[in-house]
Amino acid sequence: MARNSSSRTLTFTLTIIIIIITIISSSHQPLALNHTPRFFGKFASSTSTIPSNSQPQFDFHYETKFFQQQLDHFSFSNLPTFPQRYLINTQNWVIGSGPIFLYCGNEGDILWFAQNTGFLWEIAPKFGAMVVFPEHRYYGESVPFGSKEEAYKNATTLGYLTAEQALADFAILVTDLKQNLSAIHCPVVLFGGSYGGMLAAWMRLKYPHIAVGALASSAPILQFEDIVPLETFYDIVSNDFKRESSTCFNYIKQSWDEIESKGQSSDGLELLTKTFKFCQKLKSTEELTDWLESAYSYLAMVNYPYPSEFMMPLPGHPIKEVCRRIDESPAGSSILDRIYEGANVYYNYTGEAKCFELDDDPHGLDGWNWQACTEMVMPMSCSKESSMFPPYEYNYSSFEEDCFKNFGVKPRPKWITTEFGGHNIHNALKNFGSNIIFSNGLLDPWSGGSVLQNISESIVSLVTEEGAHHIDLRASTENDPDWLVEQRATEIRLIQGWISDYHQTHKAVFDM
Amino acid sequence: MARNSSSRTLTFTLTIIIIIITIISSSHQPLALNHTPRFFGKFASSTSTIPSNSQPQFDFHYETKFFQQQLDHFSFSNLPTFPQRYLINTQNWVIGSGPIFLYCGNEGDILWFAQNTGFLWEIAPKFGAMVVFPEHRYYGESVPFGSKEEAYKNATTLGYLTAEQALADFAILVTDLKQNLSAIHCPVVLFGGSYGGMLAAWMRLKYPHIAVGALASSAPILQFEDIVPLETFYDIVSNDFKRESSTCFNYIKQSWDEIESKGQSSDGLELLTKTFKFCQKLKSTEELTDWLESAYSYLAMVNYPYPSEFMMPLPGHPIKEVCRRIDESPAGSSILDRIYEGANVYYNYTGEAKCFELDDDPHGLDGWNWQACTEMVMPMSCSKESSMFPPYEYNYSSFEEDCFKNFGVKPRPKWITTEFGGHNIHNALKNFGSNIIFSNGLLDPWSGGSVLQNISESIVSLVTEEGAHHIDLRASTENDPDWLVEQRATEIRLIQGWISDYHQTHKAVFDM
Repeated sequence: MARNSSSRTLTFTLTIIIIIITIISSSHQPLALNHTPRFFGKFASSTSTIPSNSQPQFDFHYETKFFQQQLDHFSFSNLPTFPQRYLINTQNWVIGSGPIFLYCGNEGDILWFAQNTGFLWEIAPKFGAMVVFPEHRYYGESVPFGSKEEAYKNATTLGYLTAEQALADFAILVTDLKQNLSAIHCPVVLFGGSYGGMLAAWMRLKYPHIAVGALASSAPILQFEDIVPLETFYDIVSNDFKRESSTCFNYIKQSWDEIESKGQSSDGLELLTKTFKFCQKLKSTEELTDWLESAYSYLAMVNYPYPSEFMMPLPGHPIKEVCRRIDESPAGSSILDRIYEGANVYYNYTGEAKCFELDDDPHGLDGWNWQACTEMVMPMSCSKESSMFPPYEYNYSSFEEDCFKNFGVKPRPKWITTEFGGHNIHNALKNFGSNIIFSNGLLDPWSGGSVLQNISESIVSLVTEEGAHHIDLRASTENDPDWLVEQRATEIRLIQGWISDYHQTHKAVFDM
Repeated sequence: MARNSSSRTLTFTLTIIIIIITIISSSHQPLALNHTPRFFGKFASSTSTIPSNSQPQFDFHYETKFFQQQLDHFSFSNLPTFPQRYLINTQNWVIGSGPIFLYCGNEGDILWFAQNTGFLWEIAPKFGAMVVFPEHRYYGESVPFGSKEEAYKNATTLGYLTAEQALADFAILVTDLKQNLSAIHCPVVLFGGSYGGMLAAWMRLKYPHIAVGALASSAPILQFEDIVPLETFYDIVSNDFKRESSTCFNYIKQSWDEIESKGQSSDGLELLTKTFKFCQKLKSTEELTDWLESAYSYLAMVNYPYPSEFMMPLPGHPIKEVCRRIDESPAGSSILDRIYEGANVYYNYTGEAKCFELDDDPHGLDGWNWQACTEMVMPMSCSKESSMFPPYEYNYSSFEEDCFKNFGVKPRPKWITTEFGGHNIHNALKNFGSNIIFSNGLLDPWSGGSVLQNISESIVSLVTEEGAHHIDLRASTENDPDWLVEQRATEIRLIQGWISDYHQTHKAVFDM
């Protein structure tokens, strides 16, 4: 089966998906779904407002402000500045001494990250902390060249959408805020999830003079080159299903051949369209396999222990439910009937959808696509043996070709590890750096590319067996299991330690 | 007295001055001297070959190679690559395990830095080390756009001449070398003096995964904004004179008014030209004061305890000699006669010069001028009380104006401290980072902007009372005083510690 390698890189930070879902749900149209998102940023370009029915439960108040940033921090070419949006809340801040909680905005509208990072808002009052959510350049309302259209026009205008530039934006913004708010001696603590977690960890490493520590949740900073096995991501997804039921795993594993052989018969695509209830006729079996692979991967990320609406309205332990439906389909059900029943949990748990739409325009210019085609090159394969997915071997050449075709840009697949490290990270950071928490849930397929062992006394790994994608950053709920409550308590304790160390060192140095 | 603030930033790394001096000396012309260099880079543009009579005494063999670098590492704009020159010696390298000694090339021809960093060459065989001297972009033969003329044409072409880009060049080059020379597990140790020392320290902080430690000699990483008092540099120069003789200090301090009042008389400039033996008539008293200030500042930097030809042929303890001549001028000598006698030590110790040339084109486009007008904004003042120089208060506005006039660029005076830190450095790095030596001699006026106290157990300061500008990096001589021998022994011991820690950690991590 021909497959574009970019489809392997897959959706990344989940938070944004909810945008499109919420909009769809709230408009009461038949559930219109995009084709498997090749990269996450596709959905991240929306600047939608928050639907009133999804207001978070925690104290969520902020001012929206803008800060003029250099477009290029590392050169002195004569480029325009752009307005960076940031949300700020100083209500609970102990003026002049309380910490600054800085969330490293990722590839989307900052409002959504703010909404979905309840943990930070919940603990800020206890810390007497100021809360700042700066938006990542080129996303939301923080676009250069006056408009999204201009900013995303071509490789020349998109050229400044890089992680290093984004980190410099954060560094400059917080330095300016500290000066203007008389907060020079207030320690900055970084937070981030997924790509935002990568930014948080990297920012602590690159700007230790600006931030005292970082909570990097579900941050796959090792998902580059061959640092982790390329099969890791899809193996973890597969294992999430296998642990629930090996028959379920096997049904899924067998289904791909079934789909291919069905698709080859004369009215095969017609039949598949009907079985899976697509609103329009499938153009290829690839559309269907992408749709299913996408569902399985997202399910693994949001395999939370309680009902959630993070990506889709889903029950707690959604993979358990998917496998229950696959396994317990009526006797005589075909494999594809079973697969449909499973997918229906993900795409239509509320039962409102009458048919499913497929968006067939995966090459639209968007931010994360660009980032994945330049710096964020995360190679992935599917193992024939251990995964339930169709075997797929990563092919850099075809990836590079696609990037050039789509953006006129050549990726630099080794740049991230040169700039931020990754190879032998335990060796490199054992005697260097401090105060980073890498938190990961092992059900999350992105955990395979993160740091899962302590590096040193203060660069630590918090691993939860039953956790999924950056669940610790979300607001607390009544259904939080003990391990999650404990994990957050540990995080709070560590952050308190960083702040208290900072004040002690500061005092000692000033007393010198 | 009107004075351009750029004259305050003054000559920086001394190494390069020798280029012009050596050329002048070897051509046996009357000693032609440039006007006080406003910035160091003016002389750094030369790509002269080494005169045969200045071949260093240590084992100085290398291959010259070139590596194609991205012009802009932090953006994906479609720019040409450029060839970065580097010198490499693998003769003493223990293949596959010996360390890599990487000198961070500064603002000039790399050949001259290699020649003037004898310490590195001398210790490399003991360490079984590979030696690499990459050239700094835009200097020597490492220029983009095909030629120096094109590269230095305007702000657009010069825009990529920044410290961060240079560090990324080093990071990419050494990563590539490690791969191609099967040296993946060889620890990299950084060296650098003056601006090169700043780069070495910053590179250890920003790229800990690439280098295990840095010897940053005479690296004024704190000479930004108001981190150190703006008077520090000229106060140290002044104290270097005062410690030799307070009458000498006073003669110099009085001389400026004398020059001004002489200059105002009808034939004043004629008289001054004659007194100081300039080949052409002075156009203003400022030319003379700049010429003198420059001599005093350089003398402070090269106030070595043994005869040297680093900048000029000079006796050991040259300031002592200058003051001796000022103080011991025949009874009845005027102040200006005395001042001439003192300056003659610096500009004409060999006695070969019949008259002195003044170069009156300080605004020529050159690399360091550009760097000082963009990132490397180092404010300096002259105190009326404690310095022997004419009082001068730093004026950022006029500095900014000059930069815009000369280069069409606006400086970013706060950028370096945002990107690399500096404020409260002891606080920021006490619990972060490791393995940096800041070595400084207190006679060196640049020591005032460097790190003079230990920051942590392994970010240490080596201070020598009698040392001048990065003397420790120079080749050993028979006249080295004990403190210098000891200083170098300490540096060797610390570097050995870094390498041994690296191997131990590496082994422990691999055994995990």
